[in-house]
Amino acid sequence: MTDDGKPTLGIGMVGYSFMGAAHSQAWRSAPSFFDVPVVPVLRALGGRNAEAAGEVARRFGWESVETDWRQLVARDDVELVDVCTPGDTHAEIAIAALEAGKHVLCEKPLANTVEEAEAMVAAAEKAADSGVRSLVGFTYRRVPAIALARQLVADGRIGRIYHVRAQYLQDWISDPEAPLSWRLQKDRAGSGALGDIGAHVIDLTQHITGERITGVSAMLETFVKERPVPSSFSGPLGTTGGTLPSSAEKRASAERGPVTVDDAAVFMARFTGGALASFEATRFASGRKNAIRIEINGANGSLAFDFEDMNVLQVHDHTVDPRLGGFTRVLVTEPSHPYVEGWWPPGHLLGYEHAFTHQAVDLLTAIAGGTDPAPSFADGLVVQRILAAVEESAAANSAWTEVPV
Amino acid sequence: MTDDGKPTLGIGMVGYSFMGAAHSQAWRSAPSFFDVPVVPVLRALGGRNAEAAGEVARRFGWESVETDWRQLVARDDVELVDVCTPGDTHAEIAIAALEAGKHVLCEKPLANTVEEAEAMVAAAEKAADSGVRSLVGFTYRRVPAIALARQLVADGRIGRIYHVRAQYLQDWISDPEAPLSWRLQKDRAGSGALGDIGAHVIDLTQHITGERITGVSAMLETFVKERPVPSSFSGPLGTTGGTLPSSAEKRASAERGPVTVDDAAVFMARFTGGALASFEATRFASGRKNAIRIEINGANGSLAFDFEDMNVLQVHDHTVDPRLGGFTRVLVTEPSHPYVEGWWPPGHLLGYEHAFTHQAVDLLTAIAGGTDPAPSFADGLVVQRILAAVEESAAANSAWTEVPV
Amino acid sequence: MTDDGKPTLGIGMVGYSFMGAAHSQAWRSAPSFFDVPVVPVLRALGGRNAEAAGEVARRFGWESVETDWRQLVARDDVELVDVCTPGDTHAEIAIAALEAGKHVLCEKPLANTVEEAEAMVAAAEKAADSGVRSLVGFTYRRVPAIALARQLVADGRIGRIYHVRAQYLQDWISDPEAPLSWRLQKDRAGSGALGDIGAHVIDLTQHITGERITGVSAMLETFVKERPVPSSFSGPLGTTGGTLPSSAEKRASAERGPVTVDDAAVFMARFTGGALASFEATRFASGRKNAIRIEINGANGSLAFDFEDMNVLQVHDHTVDPRLGGFTRVLVTEPSHPYVEGWWPPGHLLGYEHAFTHQAVDLLTAIAGGTDPAPSFADGLVVQRILAAVEESAAANSAWTEVPV
Amino acid sequence: MTDDGKPTLGIGMVGYSFMGAAHSQAWRSAPSFFDVPVVPVLRALGGRNAEAAGEVARRFGWESVETDWRQLVARDDVELVDVCTPGDTHAEIAIAALEAGKHVLCEKPLANTVEEAEAMVAAAEKAADSGVRSLVGFTYRRVPAIALARQLVADGRIGRIYHVRAQYLQDWISDPEAPLSWRLQKDRAGSGALGDIGAHVIDLTQHITGERITGVSAMLETFVKERPVPSSFSGPLGTTGGTLPSSAEKRASAERGPVTVDDAAVFMARFTGGALASFEATRFASGRKNAIRIEINGANGSLAFDFEDMNVLQVHDHTVDPRLGGFTRVLVTEPSHPYVEGWWPPGHLLGYEHAFTHQAVDLLTAIAGGTDPAPSFADGLVVQRILAAVEESAAANSAWTEVPV
Repeated sequence: MTDDGKPTLGIGMVGYSFMGAAHSQAWRSAPSFFDVPVVPVLRALGGRNAEAAGEVARRFGWESVETDWRQLVARDDVELVDVCTPGDTHAEIAIAALEAGKHVLCEKPLANTVEEAEAMVAAAEKAADSGVRSLVGFTYRRVPAIALARQLVADGRIGRIYHVRAQYLQDWISDPEAPLSWRLQKDRAGSGALGDIGAHVIDLTQHITGERITGVSAMLETFVKERPVPSSFSGPLGTTGGTLPSSAEKRASAERGPVTVDDAAVFMARFTGGALASFEATRFASGRKNAIRIEINGANGSLAFDFEDMNVLQVHDHTVDPRLGGFTRVLVTEPSHPYVEGWWPPGHLLGYEHAFTHQAVDLLTAIAGGTDPAPSFADGLVVQRILAAVEESAAANSAWTEVPV
Repeated sequence: MTDDGKPTLGIGMVGYSFMGAAHSQAWRSAPSFFDVPVVPVLRALGGRNAEAAGEVARRFGWESVETDWRQLVARDDVELVDVCTPGDTHAEIAIAALEAGKHVLCEKPLANTVEEAEAMVAAAEKAADSGVRSLVGFTYRRVPAIALARQLVADGRIGRIYHVRAQYLQDWISDPEAPLSWRLQKDRAGSGALGDIGAHVIDLTQHITGERITGVSAMLETFVKERPVPSSFSGPLGTTGGTLPSSAEKRASAERGPVTVDDAAVFMARFTGGALASFEATRFASGRKNAIRIEINGANGSLAFDFEDMNVLQVHDHTVDPRLGGFTRVLVTEPSHPYVEGWWPPGHLLGYEHAFTHQAVDLLTAIAGGTDPAPSFADGLVVQRILAAVEESAAANSAWTEVPV
Repeated sequence: MTDDGKPTLGIGMVGYSFMGAAHSQAWRSAPSFFDVPVVPVLRALGGRNAEAAGEVARRFGWESVETDWRQLVARDDVELVDVCTPGDTHAEIAIAALEAGKHVLCEKPLANTVEEAEAMVAAAEKAADSGVRSLVGFTYRRVPAIALARQLVADGRIGRIYHVRAQYLQDWISDPEAPLSWRLQKDRAGSGALGDIGAHVIDLTQHITGERITGVSAMLETFVKERPVPSSFSGPLGTTGGTLPSSAEKRASAERGPVTVDDAAVFMARFTGGALASFEATRFASGRKNAIRIEINGANGSLAFDFEDMNVLQVHDHTVDPRLGGFTRVLVTEPSHPYVEGWWPPGHLLGYEHAFTHQAVDLLTAIAGGTDPAPSFADGLVVQRILAAVEESAAANSAWTEVPV
Repeated sequence: MTDDGKPTLGIGMVGYSFMGAAHSQAWRSAPSFFDVPVVPVLRALGGRNAEAAGEVARRFGWESVETDWRQLVARDDVELVDVCTPGDTHAEIAIAALEAGKHVLCEKPLANTVEEAEAMVAAAEKAADSGVRSLVGFTYRRVPAIALARQLVADGRIGRIYHVRAQYLQDWISDPEAPLSWRLQKDRAGSGALGDIGAHVIDLTQHITGERITGVSAMLETFVKERPVPSSFSGPLGTTGGTLPSSAEKRASAERGPVTVDDAAVFMARFTGGALASFEATRFASGRKNAIRIEINGANGSLAFDFEDMNVLQVHDHTVDPRLGGFTRVLVTEPSHPYVEGWWPPGHLLGYEHAFTHQAVDLLTAIAGGTDPAPSFADGLVVQRILAAVEESAAANSAWTEVPV
């Protein structure tokens, strides 16, 4: 309990790299900027490298370090386990935590395979019976402009949806000499651009529209088949964000190894309401750094978003007089916009990591309120099944592949 | 021969609506703004409705009107036949003109079927032996920003191409009560958004990249199956642009008839160099009026274009220091830019119809110089085969469909 | 009278360079795209250089050439005199034409001095008693987005105006080695950036707001005091647009001469309704080619325009829910937008010279209807007085200088 | 000393509202994301309202609260005093702190009068002899895009500067019924838009160009002379940012009081290098929320910045072939950009408050290194003198007013 009588929640986080930093800042900022009903306490940071983990713990105020994630999960003062490790370890850690009665926040994608994801959903649903909450970290849902987009669709302002256009464009390996990061290894990363960043736009488009993808036709491509092996290739325990290799991974050697994941994924889909959709995820779009671009065209209006201008939602109202029609550049920084009231006055922009704070706030609120937060592990499984369908279609010469809804 | 001793070329144009106006202005403007080697003379305008055709002829300075296109083709003073009619009449008129030894400018798409297009190519190639020239009107190639894009690729500034992203977005029938224009009738229009506007982005992406599409996987959709029949449904002879019904067609009646073409086409493709491509053509993108959007990502750089800001080409040079990298908004109005020197000083923008003047200039120059202009009828057939492959794939549940290269 | 019984109007144009081309195309296009009540006939082109003028006449279809403008004015078949010469000749030609009972279209600025402008107004007002019409060519008023801006203010959508922000930015002499064009000579051009391009934004802001400027405080600067004298410095008779020297003028010699006009003007102003205004006109804004940028902030809304994206008007409605507020990018290509119906379907952009056609249409309509067109010579005098006040203030160390309203 | 042997620095902050939150987050984030040589410890938060200050202290981890700022300054464990109160209290608190041998970070504007600012500079210079450091919080200097702009000028990429164009546009009191905040009271705030936000663009333009303003000609205006008095008008101790009243201040009553500061300031200036400059600061630009817009035009290139897209710097290189010239949208999120390496991968945007962290890092680094940080109090005085010159000019009918350099 805090000085002012608020209950606390002990957090244990596994992984401490890119996502670890984002999550640490979020746990710390949530009670500073929002009136959360339960206050997180940064109990333990888990990492195999005690020194490196210790440094991150000191920087962000974690009370202690655990070099074995099982010890972290077992601690009585850890009530929530935050899984920030690569995808191949998600299932094991998350299931163990759920079985130990700990709430779980698991980074995306939920798992590297549908089977793992199914096991995680089963564990989450069983744990939910005892009031244990779980959330998968499709954090971009909580960018205010994205949250506003969903509200506008739900309000009927877009109407019947005809088109969905979604791209996640990066360029960090368009250089053929970029090193063979763990993200380019199928056994660690599960897939390449598809699972790392394509998963985000799959989730976001379903989240905004409130609809589901029913089938896909897909192409995957690995443009550069072999790359230099980094001199130090152990790979950090904790990097799971949608982005760059650490500088350690950047030190290349003369040795070359095979890239075993996709560099880019392009696929078409249909949504439950009949919309035609076009998807793309790539790390070869030179000049685009983190361009999550989503467009929705409906009978009553349209929406457009680009993460490279993340505080803006472009909104077209198709019901107004065409003389004044067009896309309105809504700067999503008003107090009436989702999540904004906790922060700054209008026009004072938010950045990348703020959505992690929103995620922490929503999860803490759900835990305190005894409700299930979203996106659930089941939502994560939905994405996993679509990823699997994309891979299946691509392997079958782009044959149309249904997704079980 | 003109006063100053230049040779002339007698033009006969069939069709007088939207495209007729654009072509008329082009024939007239070409010798005003450019130093053309042969001066077009507007001899005859062909249209079944003598009164309506006469009005257009008077407005643009056509010397005479012919109500039977065969008469027009037969006239000795007509040396070039400009075909601006709907697609179902292209083959007949163009072949007759070529056989009569007349140069031919034929609006796009070349024809409504691959068979017709093949016959037209055969006629064009035979006529070429006698020095008769033919051109298909993929006019957007001659928008200066597009022409610059092609130059930059050819110069090696983009490098190996990884991604092509092309959309042609309009919204003029997103209203379900928009009337059943001839453009929504398969027998007149051949196809819907696919052939009318999708054909443009198919041609443009191949033109800019200098590569060819090798296969496609496609979806077609007709969102609104029945529409009000216009009270006056004869349909103008001459409207063939990628756009709106005439106001006459807008007068709806209570009667409804079936829409027999696609409202939207979404398809994926591969290019000869290995690039993954994503295409979309739709008349249901509310808020987008004539958004021809093309992006190319290559190893050395990227390009982005949007016709709604048509004087601009966005250029990213991936070889510069990232500290100064990004997309440069090149205002394509410098004297060193393609076609610009004929017009105004820098910053004085060009509009939609200027590309038609550029087309006329290039065609007149080719005729005078005894060279073959591009795009040829064979280039038009290439597009036609891709359109056919898209329809075939869509009918086969998006099965991958090779395009004969 | 035309074939279809419309009356005609004989046009005589003096000057044949940049503005001459723009006006020629306008006279020719007006009856093609608009249903004008009187049809212009291109009777005579006036230019001292018979060969050069003859070439332009041939290109644009002028029936004849006059090397002495007095002969042109005197011709019975010339009913309207279009003055496209440099500013130092406007008064003499326009007054002579008015006295000869000819309608006059005079390029801007109306004159090089207030005194000349006053004489022109007197002549115009006297001639008006006999039904002779006169118009000064502030052509940008007739760019559709600008015309829409004026409508929105008049409709009350902007409310009380607090701020006006106007810039006309070019960069064509930011290179100190750019040659000493006639535009840089006070005796020919009257002033530099101030009168050439500043005059436009002075007129436009008053036109859009429906208010007048009441006083100014100003700075003028000549950054580069001496420039290379062009090898051929006769100067064309007819260049009066707001832009570049001809390529002839670009051939520099070793000799240098003094620049006797301003390179840039920056001034503040107040409007009759109390708004604070900020103005800038410069030829030294590197990277800006023809950036006429106007912003209006009012109690109910705001407007923003940039000629480098001239088909767009940014409109902010301050009365809507801030959750959906922001600037709407209105693509001013709808049939309901000013002047657009004559041209193409939505999304098919217009270019620089289209506004000249709109000007011709409005002038022809006023002549046929017996009404006074705007902007009148008196409106031109208003601008001239503000230009004079700016020069007076700049000469007096930026002292506040009232403008007689 | 921290666990890993780093020295610490005890921070005492006076004020706890908008700026208090931004500074708290900055002190906490500095050692998390950057390798600072000395680690700040949040010792004491000063505020007259113990309860409100206690709540903020709890949220951000301040160890204690002081209701009397003199007690805070006197504490041995407070080594740096961070002044976040309204401008009328800056001088007293800052001078007391400096005299007590404490480093001082003082929010902008440095003071409400030149006299106060001079006294503060004297105190700072005297304290500097004993190694005491002081900094004035012109935080926007440390937005990465702004810092990059300064680097590019210093690198010679812009060349001789011809034009500076700077605006700070907000709209939060364009509604005449917005309440009479303390920011609208001359005795508390010193001035209105001029000092609150105009001060920022004065500082930024001098910072970026490395030049100084030598004189001004100005207009000030109070559009709305009376406003509703808020029901609770005590005013928070600590709000000093450039923005909105607290929600407490928004509760209006029937009573009305006079607005005693400017609503808007428009002024012209000259820079030491001869550039013409145009400035504007207003709270009446409807639709603009926090639009800090700066453009610099030089002989070799141009820069453009807008805080509403704060991660972007538009850069034009005027020395490249015009065929490829234009403004490049540099997304300032590369590791090679100023301050970025501490944060996220490319394309992951920063927000408003990150610049406060950069300010903390730079100040801590200067203190540890024994160097003087910038902007110094003397730099703050420079701005103060320009603000005074603006007021003097405005009061003298815009007479040109020299600024002592």
